[in-house]
This record gives sequence, C-alpha cells and structure tokens, in this order.
Amino acid sequence: MLALVFEGGRARVREVRRPVPKRGFALVRVIASGICNTDLELRRGYHDFSGIPGHEFVGRVEGPAGSPCLGKRVVGEINLSCGHCDACRRGLGRHCGKRRVLGILGHPGAHAEYLTLPEKNLHEVPEGVRDEEAVFTEPLAAACEILDQVAVDAGMRAAVIGAGKLGMLCAGVLENAGAEVALVTRGSRVRQRSFDLVVEATGEPSGMPRALELVCPRGTIVWKSTYHRPARFDAAPLVVNEVTVVGSRCGRFEPALELLRGRKIDVWKLLDAEFPLARAGRALTQAARPGVRKVLLRPGA
Amino acid sequence: MLALVFEGGRARVREVRRPVPKRGFALVRVIASGICNTDLELRRGYHDFSGIPGHEFVGRVEGPAGSPCLGKRVVGEINLSCGHCDACRRGLGRHCGKRRVLGILGHPGAHAEYLTLPEKNLHEVPEGVRDEEAVFTEPLAAACEILDQVAVDAGMRAAVIGAGKLGMLCAGVLENAGAEVALVTRGSRVRQRSFDLVVEATGEPSGMPRALELVCPRGTIVWKSTYHRPARFDAAPLVVNEVTVVGSRCGRFEPALELLRGRKIDVWKLLDAEFPLARAGRALTQAARPGVRKVLLRPGA
Repeated sequence: MLALVFEGGRARVREVRRPVPKRGFALVRVIASGICNTDLELRRGYHDFSGIPGHEFVGRVEGPAGSPCLGKRVVGEINLSCGHCDACRRGLGRHCGKRRVLGILGHPGAHAEYLTLPEKNLHEVPEGVRDEEAVFTEPLAAACEILDQVAVDAGMRAAVIGAGKLGMLCAGVLENAGAEVALVTRGSRVRQRSFDLVVEATGEPSGMPRALELVCPRGTIVWKSTYHRPARFDAAPLVVNEVTVVGSRCGRFEPALELLRGRKIDVWKLLDAEFPLARAGRALTQAARPGVRKVLLRPGA
Repeated sequence: MLALVFEGGRARVREVRRPVPKRGFALVRVIASGICNTDLELRRGYHDFSGIPGHEFVGRVEGPAGSPCLGKRVVGEINLSCGHCDACRRGLGRHCGKRRVLGILGHPGAHAEYLTLPEKNLHEVPEGVRDEEAVFTEPLAAACEILDQVAVDAGMRAAVIGAGKLGMLCAGVLENAGAEVALVTRGSRVRQRSFDLVVEATGEPSGMPRALELVCPRGTIVWKSTYHRPARFDAAPLVVNEVTVVGSRCGRFEPALELLRGRKIDVWKLLDAEFPLARAGRALTQAARPGVRKVLLRPGA
C-alpha cells in the first residue's frame, strides 16, 4: 500500500506492506486523514520518530472477516493501552505507561491507505457527519477534554490564547458550554487578571506568561501547548494568585462525535486544503505555512 | 517603641513611633514574632521593601479602649483587604488587588514592640496553646490551605519536596489528613511517577522539574515555592500526563489553630532559637544559615 513515511528527518511517500490486524484489531481503509502540528514536530525529530505518522482519520473497516465493526465508517482513539497496569485498571488507559500511540509512538499511523487499531478504540461515525468533519473528531475530543477536567459554567469568562486549529476548537467547545469566550492573539487588547479560565493553545513558550497575565486570582489555566523548548516564566503570580494549571491532552471521542452530529461546532471554517496521499510532501509544506488550518490527505484520490 | 527596620538593604533595630490604630483596627503588643524566609527575601530587596518586616506573631490586644478584643491573646491574618472590590465581594479577601500585607506590603510588621491590624483579622489563641506554638499559626495556615484546595483522601500517596519549615508543616498537615507522606530531599530515592500529590516547597527553581518526575499521570502538584528567578522546566510531561498544578499561598487561621489546640502537629521540633528583639540582626544571621529552622524574636526579652 501507499504510505507517508518519515525517516531520518525526511518525508517520503512510498510503497510499504499493508498491515495485518492482530487479534482484537480491525483493518481500516483510510478515507481521509488530517495533518496535525504534531506530525510536523515528528518530522523534525520529536520522539525520535520514524515510520508512518498520522493520528486523525476517518475510514471504513475492511477486516478481519467476522469483526463486529466490519463495513462500518469509523474514527479511532489513538492510545493503545496495555489493559493491565495501574493506570489501565483505574480507567486511565490514555495514561498507560506502556501505551503505544497511533502514528506517534510504536504504532503505524493514518497517513496511509490502511491502518490497524484495536476494535475497542473504534467509534462509528453518525450518518449525518461527513468525512471531512469526522476527521476533526480527534482534535475536537482534545478540546472537549477541558470539560472533563474543569467545571465550565454559563457566563464564565474564558480566554483562548492562540488562534490555531486547536485554539479555535477549544473556543467552540467552551462557547457551546455557555462560556463567554475571547480569542486572544498577539495584538489583542484585553483586561489583565480578568478571566476565570484561560486556555493556552499557542504552541509557544510565550503562551504561559501571557496566560498568567490574563487569569484572575484563583482562576484556571488549561495548558494545551507542547513544544520542544523548556517553559520559562515568573512563577510568583501563579503561587501568589493561587492559580490552577491543568495539563490537558487527548479526550474521549463520544462528546466530540455528539457535537459534530448535532452541528454544534462548525469545523468547515478550519478546513484549508485537501491533497491526494501521493502528494503528501506538498501537503506537509502547505500545512507548515503560518496561518494555514487543517490540511487533509486522501489515499483514494 | 523598638522595631527591626529594613532600609536600603540594611537591617537595623531602632526606636520608631508606636503605631496608632485606625478605626476598626486593634493595637497589639507583640509577645513573640517568627522570622520567615520571606523576611530574608525582603531584606535582599524583594518587593523593594523598606520598613518593619514580620508577619508571624502572637500578641496581646492593648487598645483601643472599648475594643471587643481588648486583653485577648491573639494571632492575626496578614492580608488587609479593601472589602469592596470584585475579589473581596467573592469572599477572596486574601486575593484583593488593593490588599496591604502585614510586614510585606504597605503595612508595618510584627518584628516590633507593637503592631496594628483590623480587628476582623484577629483570632484569639486557645488557652492550651503556648506562645511559641501560636507563632506557627500563620505558616501552619499556609500548609492547611492545601486541604482547602485539593481533596486529600486517606491512604493517598503524597510527597513533600523540600524539608524546610513549610515543607515539614505541609507534611504534618497531610499526614494528619490521612495521607501517606514521603519527605523528599535532594538525595532521596523514591519511585518516579508514583505520587498522587506532590507538594513543591523547596523555594528553588529545581523543585518543579523534580515534582514533575514524582507525580503520577493525572496527579496534582501543589506549588508553594516563590523565588526571584524564573521557573524553567520541560512542560511536556505536565501536558502529556495531564498534571494539575495548584498555586498555594496563605490559608485560613481556623484549621491551623484547631490543629495546634488538639496537639495534632508538633511545631516544637521546628523551633531553633529565640533572640531578644534588640538582637534581631544576630537572629537574622542565624535564620539565614542552611538547615536552621524557626527563629523567634521577643520584644519583651
């Protein structure tokens, strides 16, 4: 099959062996996959990654024969947990210390014609949700994770720093939960120490100091950004103002699919371009341009 | 009256005017005051401080005539809030943006023969609690603040990093709440990612990276340390492991006095030495030595 492969800092589209699903796994034909900033980081050497990247996708289950998922259009949770460790037993499979992660860590990803995932990771896509929307399930779930971690009340004053894809999704999720949301970019003028909740989704070390300026005493900062460089900031306002900082990563797929099904979040405005998988190199270049939003790959195109 | 005064980086004991209590304030004759690390930082220029430092004390109310507190032995909350702003209206007087702070910000402190404080800030010391113990009310309240911020369950695995005075008090408070507490110092060998709760009380920028090594996924770090230099650490584990970091400062006095009254916390082991107020310079030198615990000043001695 055709796949995008990262090796030694280079990205190539080439023929690789189609994966064979292990026991409990399904074989999924990828309909479309989304390029995430994490993919761009992996290409630069994050996690010493080599292999097939990609963890945002929609696909159709084509095997094995007898699978309860056979023929279904699905999206899939990206963490493959061991099922036995302390974290797994506490229902925190997304934090399993032995986990592999689709297209990120130890398991080939979605920028390919086929992938495999445990059947328990798959979720059927509701009928009214289009393929292009379904690809957003994974990042939208990461935005929904905020609601599982922080009590968001109607009328809550929230700020989202960083108007990238994840920031826009977080803003949408918070607005849908009833918060008053300000999208804060570099030049925005907003009142300092006036937000109950600040989502830091800049992907930049400068995000945290900004978040600490915006959050009110006893307020909460949700920290979504990951980056290579160390974070560096004056921690005194965090301690003195008794701010809570909540690290936030992946989320459950159910609330994200529910938002897409109910058309509560408009993801179309986040869609930038589609490329055939064979043109993945060009797609990566496009995705890396400043201000560009979601770029999709289509293996079938 | 005699007072310790910080001016231009120098500490001097000299005669100053006895303070006159404003409306709603009490005049308190100081029985004993405790030297806090914050005092040592103020001397070095933190907050551009000049004036009388000291915010840990026990004293007796000597005025004004007719005060409901007259004659009582008291300790006092250190934040003088405006009572009118948004934070004050929400019951967060300790976070009032216009607050003055006893011996730290805009209000003369306790290393003196007399101080004034709003009557509403004062708490009577229970009879069985000795003066030397009562001086620990303020730092013990800061340790108790953790219980107001984080749900501490029986059997919870907790680590306290930094075996200074505040660290020891935090460990005592957590043990008393039923947690299994490990006091972690530089050389300690403990299992990484194995603690539900980590209290960072090192006062050093190295504390946060250590705390992130110790805390388990979805665990909580209580950040107690303040210091001049910027914090600098790899934030990826915080985000990826969805750690919650809670800034924590002052606390309510009631639970601290209750612990002292019930002899639940042994503060005597934290007491290092006592000096007459007139010898405050020598006391500061002693308090600044590595490993030295609480040093008290006695205006009456």
